[in-house]
Amino acid sequence: MNPPKKAFAGCLAAYGDSDAVLFGAPFETGGLPQAGTAVAPFAIRDGCWGLETYSPYLRADIGDYKIFDAGDLDLPPGDAARALDAIESFCGKVFDDGKMPVMVGGEQIVAFGAVRAAAARCPNLAVLHFGAHAGLKREWRKEPLAAQTVIRRIWELVGDGRIFQFGVRSGGQDEFSWAMDHVRIEAFDANSIDSCAEAIISRPIYITVDLDVINPSELPGAPLQEAGGMSFRSLHDALTSLRGFDVVGFDICGLAPNLDPSGASTALSRKLLREMLIAFSPTR
Amino acid sequence: MNPPKKAFAGCLAAYGDSDAVLFGAPFETGGLPQAGTAVAPFAIRDGCWGLETYSPYLRADIGDYKIFDAGDLDLPPGDAARALDAIESFCGKVFDDGKMPVMVGGEQIVAFGAVRAAAARCPNLAVLHFGAHAGLKREWRKEPLAAQTVIRRIWELVGDGRIFQFGVRSGGQDEFSWAMDHVRIEAFDANSIDSCAEAIISRPIYITVDLDVINPSELPGAPLQEAGGMSFRSLHDALTSLRGFDVVGFDICGLAPNLDPSGASTALSRKLLREMLIAFSPTR
Amino acid sequence: MNPPKKAFAGCLAAYGDSDAVLFGAPFETGGLPQAGTAVAPFAIRDGCWGLETYSPYLRADIGDYKIFDAGDLDLPPGDAARALDAIESFCGKVFDDGKMPVMVGGEQIVAFGAVRAAAARCPNLAVLHFGAHAGLKREWRKEPLAAQTVIRRIWELVGDGRIFQFGVRSGGQDEFSWAMDHVRIEAFDANSIDSCAEAIISRPIYITVDLDVINPSELPGAPLQEAGGMSFRSLHDALTSLRGFDVVGFDICGLAPNLDPSGASTALSRKLLREMLIAFSPTR
Amino acid sequence: MNPPKKAFAGCLAAYGDSDAVLFGAPFETGGLPQAGTAVAPFAIRDGCWGLETYSPYLRADIGDYKIFDAGDLDLPPGDAARALDAIESFCGKVFDDGKMPVMVGGEQIVAFGAVRAAAARCPNLAVLHFGAHAGLKREWRKEPLAAQTVIRRIWELVGDGRIFQFGVRSGGQDEFSWAMDHVRIEAFDANSIDSCAEAIISRPIYITVDLDVINPSELPGAPLQEAGGMSFRSLHDALTSLRGFDVVGFDICGLAPNLDPSGASTALSRKLLREMLIAFSPTR
Amino acid sequence: MNPPKKAFAGCLAAYGDSDAVLFGAPFETGGLPQAGTAVAPFAIRDGCWGLETYSPYLRADIGDYKIFDAGDLDLPPGDAARALDAIESFCGKVFDDGKMPVMVGGEQIVAFGAVRAAAARCPNLAVLHFGAHAGLKREWRKEPLAAQTVIRRIWELVGDGRIFQFGVRSGGQDEFSWAMDHVRIEAFDANSIDSCAEAIISRPIYITVDLDVINPSELPGAPLQEAGGMSFRSLHDALTSLRGFDVVGFDICGLAPNLDPSGASTALSRKLLREMLIAFSPTR
Amino acid sequence: MNPPKKAFAGCLAAYGDSDAVLFGAPFETGGLPQAGTAVAPFAIRDGCWGLETYSPYLRADIGDYKIFDAGDLDLPPGDAARALDAIESFCGKVFDDGKMPVMVGGEQIVAFGAVRAAAARCPNLAVLHFGAHAGLKREWRKEPLAAQTVIRRIWELVGDGRIFQFGVRSGGQDEFSWAMDHVRIEAFDANSIDSCAEAIISRPIYITVDLDVINPSELPGAPLQEAGGMSFRSLHDALTSLRGFDVVGFDICGLAPNLDPSGASTALSRKLLREMLIAFSPTR
Repeated sequence: MNPPKKAFAGCLAAYGDSDAVLFGAPFETGGLPQAGTAVAPFAIRDGCWGLETYSPYLRADIGDYKIFDAGDLDLPPGDAARALDAIESFCGKVFDDGKMPVMVGGEQIVAFGAVRAAAARCPNLAVLHFGAHAGLKREWRKEPLAAQTVIRRIWELVGDGRIFQFGVRSGGQDEFSWAMDHVRIEAFDANSIDSCAEAIISRPIYITVDLDVINPSELPGAPLQEAGGMSFRSLHDALTSLRGFDVVGFDICGLAPNLDPSGASTALSRKLLREMLIAFSPTR
Repeated sequence: MNPPKKAFAGCLAAYGDSDAVLFGAPFETGGLPQAGTAVAPFAIRDGCWGLETYSPYLRADIGDYKIFDAGDLDLPPGDAARALDAIESFCGKVFDDGKMPVMVGGEQIVAFGAVRAAAARCPNLAVLHFGAHAGLKREWRKEPLAAQTVIRRIWELVGDGRIFQFGVRSGGQDEFSWAMDHVRIEAFDANSIDSCAEAIISRPIYITVDLDVINPSELPGAPLQEAGGMSFRSLHDALTSLRGFDVVGFDICGLAPNLDPSGASTALSRKLLREMLIAFSPTR
Repeated sequence: MNPPKKAFAGCLAAYGDSDAVLFGAPFETGGLPQAGTAVAPFAIRDGCWGLETYSPYLRADIGDYKIFDAGDLDLPPGDAARALDAIESFCGKVFDDGKMPVMVGGEQIVAFGAVRAAAARCPNLAVLHFGAHAGLKREWRKEPLAAQTVIRRIWELVGDGRIFQFGVRSGGQDEFSWAMDHVRIEAFDANSIDSCAEAIISRPIYITVDLDVINPSELPGAPLQEAGGMSFRSLHDALTSLRGFDVVGFDICGLAPNLDPSGASTALSRKLLREMLIAFSPTR
Repeated sequence: MNPPKKAFAGCLAAYGDSDAVLFGAPFETGGLPQAGTAVAPFAIRDGCWGLETYSPYLRADIGDYKIFDAGDLDLPPGDAARALDAIESFCGKVFDDGKMPVMVGGEQIVAFGAVRAAAARCPNLAVLHFGAHAGLKREWRKEPLAAQTVIRRIWELVGDGRIFQFGVRSGGQDEFSWAMDHVRIEAFDANSIDSCAEAIISRPIYITVDLDVINPSELPGAPLQEAGGMSFRSLHDALTSLRGFDVVGFDICGLAPNLDPSGASTALSRKLLREMLIAFSPTR
Repeated sequence: MNPPKKAFAGCLAAYGDSDAVLFGAPFETGGLPQAGTAVAPFAIRDGCWGLETYSPYLRADIGDYKIFDAGDLDLPPGDAARALDAIESFCGKVFDDGKMPVMVGGEQIVAFGAVRAAAARCPNLAVLHFGAHAGLKREWRKEPLAAQTVIRRIWELVGDGRIFQFGVRSGGQDEFSWAMDHVRIEAFDANSIDSCAEAIISRPIYITVDLDVINPSELPGAPLQEAGGMSFRSLHDALTSLRGFDVVGFDICGLAPNLDPSGASTALSRKLLREMLIAFSPTR
Repeated sequence: MNPPKKAFAGCLAAYGDSDAVLFGAPFETGGLPQAGTAVAPFAIRDGCWGLETYSPYLRADIGDYKIFDAGDLDLPPGDAARALDAIESFCGKVFDDGKMPVMVGGEQIVAFGAVRAAAARCPNLAVLHFGAHAGLKREWRKEPLAAQTVIRRIWELVGDGRIFQFGVRSGGQDEFSWAMDHVRIEAFDANSIDSCAEAIISRPIYITVDLDVINPSELPGAPLQEAGGMSFRSLHDALTSLRGFDVVGFDICGLAPNLDPSGASTALSRKLLREMLIAFSPTR
């Protein structure tokens, strides 16, 4: 008899043998109108037995890849600065061991920790952001670290012309003005992703997905729902069109499972994670 | 120190200085399979701090307009006739002060009060109705005033050829038959809105939106959900195509916040209200 | 093959043969902070197949009594005055046919219709009220007919010393002051019910139960929850202690099924209805 | 006075006079990540008074057809084999009386019972399956009868080239491989339905719809939600394009009403049932 | 780095070293008005990190005992007979290895499997049942195996005078009549538990708890809620008063997690499981 | 016409004229199994129009007191240290202006900020804590500031014998051991509150209430529900028994409104706040 195991669907490799390392970053700041993203990593893993490991979209099985599920980081609640240090440090080790980090948030601010680790190792790094909110505020309630500021923080790290945003449909006037000089932003959709190819083809890429880029109809479980988002299908198309590019790491953030007791939002998130793991996991 | 204020996002003008007057009409008859529209004005205002005041769709900020939030009318529950009188009277004063009334219902029957005020002042008035249900019944459970009869009541006021309905996908056989001779009705969608231009270009227009025109996938918080509705995007496109027309007043009705505890339906309604306020508020 | 039937558990008598007549009064005014009591009669009947017809409390089966389920009255939404007329008229006929009316509301204002029919026939009538709210306001938003005013309206009919209130734990200072001279009111509990016996033993009694007399822990499905209520058990004890008195009619009101999707509030209401039907149905 | 009746909207024919017989099959195995499909027949019938009997899509009224609502079968819980026998037997009688059986599940395994009855009488039978999951597993937890195996079981009955699947977007690698040699499967959508015409035009057709073929955005009330499904509109288009074909019976399965307390999923199911009844009921 | 583990709080012993073996029996028949008990074992384990391992009631820590968490049995959905065989077989092995089986259901019928294993090894066995429903029906919808029949089935195994039922507050007249001659039944409460001591002190005891014995106010997440149940505290007192008796095995059944999205029902169940594990686990 | 105002029921005094100052502290760390306490101040204020201002328990009206509602502090999300500084600073000003601060959390860690302000001004301060969890851990995930540590932090400030805890029914073995030498702790209930009188009669008192001290049956809207809590009535009795003592400030924390969409948890919290404001507001 064996005790029950708990790992994301098909992610059964040992660390040493793995090419990608999945981990949870159960952290949120509590600065959004609704809360609950910190429990997303648990929720995504907990019920994953209902998810097939095979993708009829990509015609591949997650079990064909070498992915290690490292469980969740033990992050200090109420202290974003230290939480990001822990994430950066973990991702740094994964990078240095030659593997790809895959993070399940948490509030999107956790992406800043992962990008710091990536940027330190990839001077050329481009960052692709999918999300409903611009995230370009200089600060939020006088605080530098928040979902509302995360892309601005990342810009301070990677600089002009290296950030590509898709599906953004909310932000202040100042954010959209500032964006014009510093980042490439497509409002509402991700139709322009092909036209970015030239700019990113020769770069290492980090992808951060705030799940609220998806229409609340398909993902009501988000703390600050913005009507008029992308469909799962169009997001899936956009993301999988990046297959073959040099994706060095990615995350999905912003699921608040309790806001959707039907479980549909969590089920979608699991499925997207499976698809991205298949699309971007390194092969030998 | 100042006590907390409560007004819809960016609607901070004083009455005297305002061009548009926002108010709530928290009234419902209880004649629908599910209830709760009477609390919509509270719900829409309560959590509005999560809404940006800037619209990336219209590239304008609600704070650029002079809008006064008058709070909610004190309407007599269980007495539709008197409630409509109060609404008519309030709207009448707003009209007479040279301002545009903007109403948040409540069940859509409240629109009849506002239209009575408008029609009394604009002999030419056209009425545009967005909603899932035809609203053309002669009476509902022997009662003349109900969501199921509101457009019929409005027709009695404005007459043939002056009502334009969009997105209607439910009604009795008798309603659709009657409609052919008296109103212009587009089932399911609002693709024909451009073709109405000629008919309405020279008229003052009142717009009444029952939020159930939107697909329940995006707005489950409606008392009588009808599958197959419009998307937020298509409704937004249709409405904002009317920018520049002579819109003299409008309302959004039919949100039942409690039916969607995720908050997504209420968030959509707030966003639509912001967009319509920006699109139609008078400027000087 | 027979088509599906729909009657409350065990209420299978024909009208002519019946001693009690159960009916629904699906009406609400929309003047409470939350809504949905109008659908209670449907909800209580719909899932009643999960309820045993036998009561281990009273050691009797509902099928031992002659109860006819008349379905629901067709009440005009948004017009409390006419709705009460319809209820009064229906109850009047039931009384005149020598049967006991049993009503399932709806908002508690519907009790006023039933009491009007009872008082017209029983000059001596005493009214027992179980509810969280005093219901003694003179008017509510300038409206005479509302849950907040229903006991005051009943007092205007039956006069001083004829109303006995239990479990009341909310009301304005004016209501409690006024009550001292006109009604007998026990706040919070129903411990004094035995001491009322003398006053009511020789009178016909009408019992109206607003289900919010029960603690929200046991009945969260109420539009205006008041902490600190009675338990199902203590309410059951109080009510069944009245067995043998001359109960001429009763109602249960105030369930808002949608506010408790677990179904527990509706299940409790069904069970209470069964118990009261067994306790008070006339026998020959 | 008449007691309340309970039949699906407009299905008021007597059995002897009917052309189609609607019945519920309240059965589920409990082998899915979430449960509750067994109560769907009750939920669909219970609140159907909010549904118009007229279809503006098909410009017909359900009352124009002769449909008998037989209520729900009394199926043995926890014993799939016997439950299927009961369904097969009931459908057999309906077929033998020259009527069309219309079943509301329950978990989709119930379709196997109906198909057994149909296949025994129509040697040529083609089966059209709409559903998110392939249902082609050989067994599920060593059990032959389950939602995960139902189409495989049906194939054992009707053989190669007789099953047409649409909207399938989940399954194991082995299922999709196996499918290539035995069934016709369109993943994700139902665009190919016209191209099936030739293959099915001369055959009697049974249609089984697992409602999870619809996007969880429109139907969150499904036990195993799969993102990326069809819209109500596209499913409706696909199904009604089959009008005029020789449809001998159909079912809709897989609704779990409690997972969507807003009621939108149940409302959609009711509406789809109305449309299919109008589209496929025999006329004389 | 270690992969994530998943075991109930503090149950970290290896099988060989364990005195008690915890396992899940995720099975339900679907024969109750609401469903979802099959997922209880997952839900109870999934979020158990919020539960302290220490009991301030019993002043002991679950980690002080040698408990192995065996995960969940793989039970055939839709086939109660085979599911019970699997449970009996598993429990038999645990007994034969000199350990105590502890089962988390599932619908209470699963208790029959465990009791069969216990009765085969303990000729003297007494069974204590806590539950809202008598469970004494001879059959349910012509099916022998169901929550409604489980205690009757157990009686057929152990005979008269060996079953002690507490908290029962629902059942048919026939069940309560039959009970008088065959079992000892305390309706509503468990006050008589001390007076049972003499009868059970010299017997091996199996305890089966249907969580619906608890008042729906504390545990709304039950498929068939019965008002007027016991409190957690009184159930806890009754159960822990059995400490020191020869308890050979026990189960908790009947939680439907999805019916209570607040998580309170599941949290209570976890806590009760901790308390029972501490109270009854063998020590050396 | 006046714009809508938003203040807690009856708290209409101006700051200068006030004796008590109510404010919200919308902060949480995200370190609990469920989240959402940060929005409690909004939720408590938003729907407060359904609450009577009169208390039939204390026979007084909240309007009889001079209470200013200062709205909510603007606290930095994700930075507990700075958030507590802001709370301390605000409370300090209120104290220095001779008024009583009344705080609505937020996660209970916010109490530490208020107590710091109180302790700096009242060397003798006693702290009364009502809550389900001991809160005596030295740190939580290596973080000093958390709900799990808040009473330990307060102890570091006020020292041995100055903290009185009631209703505690969860904690680690180490917490309960440590408590014996440093604080006075009553597990499960607050029966000993009278016996504390001697110890606190001559001291200034700060009261902090984590609403999870209440049984989840009455308050399911708490992030970490612990079965077996106090009733609203017993908590109310305990708290109001302190009337007349020198209460210098108090808070209520730990409500997570979204976990209880029925609104009952929020309604209870509002009512408790009213009672405490009446019981403890200074009078002249």
